[in-house]
Parts: sequence; C-alpha cells; structure tokens
Amino acid sequence: MRWQQIGHLPCSVARALSVVGDRWTLLILRDAFIGARRFDHFAASLKLSPHLLSTRLGKLVDEGILERRAYQSQPVRHEYRLTDKGRDLYPVIASLVRWGDRWMSGSDGPPARLVHKTCGHRTTPELVCSECREALRPRDIAFSFQSNEEEERS
Amino acid sequence: MRWQQIGHLPCSVARALSVVGDRWTLLILRDAFIGARRFDHFAASLKLSPHLLSTRLGKLVDEGILERRAYQSQPVRHEYRLTDKGRDLYPVIASLVRWGDRWMSGSDGPPARLVHKTCGHRTTPELVCSECREALRPRDIAFSFQSNEEEERS
Repeated sequence: MRWQQIGHLPCSVARALSVVGDRWTLLILRDAFIGARRFDHFAASLKLSPHLLSTRLGKLVDEGILERRAYQSQPVRHEYRLTDKGRDLYPVIASLVRWGDRWMSGSDGPPARLVHKTCGHRTTPELVCSECREALRPRDIAFSFQSNEEEERS
Repeated sequence: MRWQQIGHLPCSVARALSVVGDRWTLLILRDAFIGARRFDHFAASLKLSPHLLSTRLGKLVDEGILERRAYQSQPVRHEYRLTDKGRDLYPVIASLVRWGDRWMSGSDGPPARLVHKTCGHRTTPELVCSECREALRPRDIAFSFQSNEEEERS
C-alpha cells in the first residue's frame, strides 16, 4: 500500500495519521501547544528548512488544524493558531509526553514535569473511559462495527 | 535539524517520536493492539513490502516495544508480542482513534465504536489528571523544569 491511500481506509487511526502522521508535523503541534504562533518561532525551535516548515504549516492550515491570521498590517505578518480541531489533538501529544517521560528519559529523569494548574499538582495524563471513569486498558476494549449494528437492527 | 538528532533533544515528545514517529510504525502498533502477532498478519493488514515491514518490526524489537517469541519449533516460526513498554503506548493509539472518529469520519460516522467491556458502555477515551481526575486541557498545564527546581532547592 502507498501512504497516499491510507486516508481512505476504514480506520480512524489511519485517517488521523494521513493528516498528522508526519513526525515533523507532530513536533510542530507540540510547539503550537506550548505557545508557538509565528513562523520564526517554529523555525527556531525545529531548525527545519523554511521550505519544509512552510509546506507542513500549509498542510495543517488546509486540514483545518491551524488557522492563519494576520497579526500586523504594515507589512502584513501572519501567525498560526490552533483551531478547535487542532486543540482536540492535545491527548495525542500529551500521551506522547507521558510515554517519553516514562520510557525515554534515562538517568536524568524527564526534562520537564507537567503541573495541572486547576488542582495545583504535578500530573500524569491518564486515559479513562468517558462513562465509568476507570482507566482504559487495551484488553478491556471491544469493537462494535457499524455493519454488525445494521445486521442486529434488521 | 536532521531527524536522526531528534532523539537527543531534551523533549519527551521528540524522544518518543524518534522511536514511534514513523507513521507505518504507528499502524503496526495499531494492529498489535487489535491482536496481530504474526508477520503474515501485519503484512496482510498493511500491504507493506516484506523488507519495509521487517525493518520496522526489527526496530520495535530493538527498542523493547515488541518481543519476538518462537511459537512453533519445526520449522521455527516467530510472533511479535507487545511488551509492557509497548502496551504503555495504548493511550497514543486510543487518542488517535478518538480524534479520527471525531474529525475524519465523514457522513458515514466512525468505522467502529469502542465498547468498554468493564462497564459495558460505548466509550470515548478521555484524558484526565492523575491527581484530581478532571479533564486535562492544554491551557491548564504548566511546566516545571528540572533546572528551576534545582534553583528553587538551592
């Protein structure tokens, strides 16, 4: 299979990765979540060539994940802000942080700790079930397919 | 910056992506979480060339995310099982599922619904704070850096 076909698969992971699966794109989103908005901020952080950075920011704008807004008129300058669709990717980035903190830190420990300002504690992101609020583990998940549901209904 | 340097950055997202940031690798992990274990299962699902699949599975074994075990002795055949480090990537995959379900489904709706067997309900994975159990939103997160803590202590 070629990567270009991935977005058409009946799988939400594949569809998500067709948009954000580029690894530089996930680092651009990381930067956006910690406050980067301007081209120069992203460029300084990622040290990507302007062409590669511009292509990736443009794709994120096309996909509705970032919004390009003028923040200055003379000369016109733009910044990139996360949309609702983009902000909704936070669990993906936060889950990567948690895993990297736990498994890739080495003897120095994690480079930074997350603090939940709402409760004031150091936090670890946890994935829970929206209904019973218990931790979601892979072995506790089953899949209900639309076609089965249609059969059940008929 | 070249991608090979990413794993050395003081950032857990970058370090995590240095290992799992390849998009095919994330699809291999998706398959592992829904029960794929044998080379042929992954190959049939992903339609990747044997060489590319073998390289990626080998990297996941080298990184301790998959474990290669013999399941048959004559002739010897191996399967790939998630390790603890691998299973701990579930929140990343589940968060991609949730986002893909929400934003990439089109008019047909999500290809499959998740059911939490523990409580019996259709579920949506939610990210919460380990301490107060409230939803974690990016604007509620602050960072505490090791160097600051050392300064605070001295």
